[in-house]
Amino acid sequence: MSAANVIADLRALAVRTSDEHGAQRVAWGPIWRDARAWLDEVLAAEGLTAETDAAGNNWITLPGARPDTVIIGGHLDSVPNGGWLDGPLGVLTGVEVLRRYKGTTPPVTLAVADFADEEGARFSRSLLGSSGASGSLVPDAVRHLVDRKGICLADALAEHGVDVERMPEARQALDARHPHAYLELHIEQGPVLESMGRSTGAVIGTYGVERHVLRFVGQAAHSGSTPIAMRRDAFLAAAETALACREIARAHSTPEHGMVCTVGTVMVEPAIVTAVPGVCEIALDQRALEPAILKSALADAQAAAARAAAANHVSVEWRHVWRIDPCRFDPRLVDLCAEAVQEVTGHAPRLPSGPLHDAVEMGRIMPSVMMFAMSSNGLSHCKEEDTPERDLDVTIEAFLRLIDKTVAMVAAS
Amino acid sequence: MSAANVIADLRALAVRTSDEHGAQRVAWGPIWRDARAWLDEVLAAEGLTAETDAAGNNWITLPGARPDTVIIGGHLDSVPNGGWLDGPLGVLTGVEVLRRYKGTTPPVTLAVADFADEEGARFSRSLLGSSGASGSLVPDAVRHLVDRKGICLADALAEHGVDVERMPEARQALDARHPHAYLELHIEQGPVLESMGRSTGAVIGTYGVERHVLRFVGQAAHSGSTPIAMRRDAFLAAAETALACREIARAHSTPEHGMVCTVGTVMVEPAIVTAVPGVCEIALDQRALEPAILKSALADAQAAAARAAAANHVSVEWRHVWRIDPCRFDPRLVDLCAEAVQEVTGHAPRLPSGPLHDAVEMGRIMPSVMMFAMSSNGLSHCKEEDTPERDLDVTIEAFLRLIDKTVAMVAAS
Repeated sequence: MSAANVIADLRALAVRTSDEHGAQRVAWGPIWRDARAWLDEVLAAEGLTAETDAAGNNWITLPGARPDTVIIGGHLDSVPNGGWLDGPLGVLTGVEVLRRYKGTTPPVTLAVADFADEEGARFSRSLLGSSGASGSLVPDAVRHLVDRKGICLADALAEHGVDVERMPEARQALDARHPHAYLELHIEQGPVLESMGRSTGAVIGTYGVERHVLRFVGQAAHSGSTPIAMRRDAFLAAAETALACREIARAHSTPEHGMVCTVGTVMVEPAIVTAVPGVCEIALDQRALEPAILKSALADAQAAAARAAAANHVSVEWRHVWRIDPCRFDPRLVDLCAEAVQEVTGHAPRLPSGPLHDAVEMGRIMPSVMMFAMSSNGLSHCKEEDTPERDLDVTIEAFLRLIDKTVAMVAAS
Repeated sequence: MSAANVIADLRALAVRTSDEHGAQRVAWGPIWRDARAWLDEVLAAEGLTAETDAAGNNWITLPGARPDTVIIGGHLDSVPNGGWLDGPLGVLTGVEVLRRYKGTTPPVTLAVADFADEEGARFSRSLLGSSGASGSLVPDAVRHLVDRKGICLADALAEHGVDVERMPEARQALDARHPHAYLELHIEQGPVLESMGRSTGAVIGTYGVERHVLRFVGQAAHSGSTPIAMRRDAFLAAAETALACREIARAHSTPEHGMVCTVGTVMVEPAIVTAVPGVCEIALDQRALEPAILKSALADAQAAAARAAAANHVSVEWRHVWRIDPCRFDPRLVDLCAEAVQEVTGHAPRLPSGPLHDAVEMGRIMPSVMMFAMSSNGLSHCKEEDTPERDLDVTIEAFLRLIDKTVAMVAAS
């Protein structure tokens, strides 16, 4: 019954905010605003209302017998051409939790957070609203970000009543809620649960990320007149490095959880069919759950790139792009989550999350955990994103069970 | 003395037709027309005139005692931001030959060909004028080519009085000249002579080319959530293939002359740092002097790409772009060329040409050979293109000696 409500809400939202290419709820845009207006209507029908904090996040509160609060989070914003589950699954399951407790006084306070701009699709800064709520946001670091039309983040947010300077004040408002636990239900966005034949998993943490651009510089030369032995081919040096980095990821993977490494962009110059590339830039994204493994893999990648550069008589420079530490979710909540999954599905897979989530920001200030619903074909950030209804059903049921267990735990503390 | 004339002419042309980025004599454009106007002035001072054939090539003729003709060729057109020697070295050394014989009746007729649009810089079709003169041009295959501004080749040529349909008629005009030998002096555009410490070389032929685009298709996936073992990474398949093709080129190289292979362009999709590439296209350019070696290397590359695709769980498709057979220059003329080089420089290196030249088209219809001047740092198609004057001096002297030997040979035939 509860799962059916959530799925019906998800479908209604998808109809209202998608086109033939998928969901279009990009944060700080008209369709995202319409998604929030739609949610307000859904809440109004339940006698609930949302309040907006200084970072643009919406909060829906059901006061309990104690001010101590269990928070259920998610986000309504999507990437362009996105899926129907990434984000709203968390928010709308949260709303269903409030529906179930409505008319009663729960032992602790419940709050649903609809975080603003989790995806960073417009300004390339993800976890924007939740980092305001956690207080980790540095306004100076984001104020001047611009979108593809040259509109600056500060101006776009001001149109939504959000003053970038004051976003970290959302942290004080959150502290005033007496937050005791953060729970987030999300689609996996990867193939792990599907490959295990499982509907649902407990998430042990999120990978840390080391992201760099590697620039190899050799010498452009005519493809016909330059013997192989005299070349300084920047692309082949990059190709050797990319392949070596995959081996490094394999070598650093353990049976419990892997590490990953990806070369997602490749640029060569002069990029003509009759020229040996004199320049090649690749973006290297390395992720692992253990800080020591991430550090070791980065060092190995640096050594591999240096070897490939030397072998090809080119130079290589590393440009740091971004890094974030791995995040381990609260062990007690992870156990509780696995228990709920086990009780409903008969299995309790535990897995790390490769993508980042608002739970990472919430994990900075309170015990947090996530639960994953399996992804069909591992796809996300596309209109094909899906979790079959039978898997959604049991996942939502397991998540509601996790809520109950967490409420009981906080009430008993 | 002769070499000094040629170098002075080359410098004067460079001053008139270059900017701070290099030579700008792109065929069918105003600066190329100005280069030809400048040459007309140089010729007028010698009492010579140029005639234009149906393919837009200019011919300067010095009648001899017999109609049998020795042709000296080159081209005034350049790539954008080109060098001072690529093309004009041949034409202006030819003009110097006419200067030397002027006022006499040479035993055979001499003609200098200034071929139109050797580079194909504007319409991506090289050897345009010389393929008209050889009769190999297929008007239907080039008529609709467009430049970056959308102007069609037929229209651009019509503005220069060239009717694309009638370009192959230049072949009849060439046949009427009783052509007996074609000689072309060109800058090497590669590092081989420099690496040998030699100024000048006899060219034994030009590489054949097999050019393909390889499209690898796997599955785009999130860089964080997709374990290495579950990926279908199109870029890594392409990287393995590119590296394998270099090994294939090495394996097919002989001490006498190598074969080469180049991946000059690389495109990945979706080309974002957080996505495993689902698609990767590379352009593969393979060249060799022996048809059997080129064929074998292509077969090996196809096998290597298939193996890399299978290993990475992706598909690969080959799209044929272009091919041309290897061209072997006339053995007797190659010997004569090596003899002239030996007499002037004390060494007689023989080497193949990786790039194509108008001599390939002329070689279809008469005995042909080329002589190379060394390239500083192997560079060409850039403003840094250079041959030091002392090397140019001996090369021009050797080429004039080759002319005399060829004239004597044709006269004796």
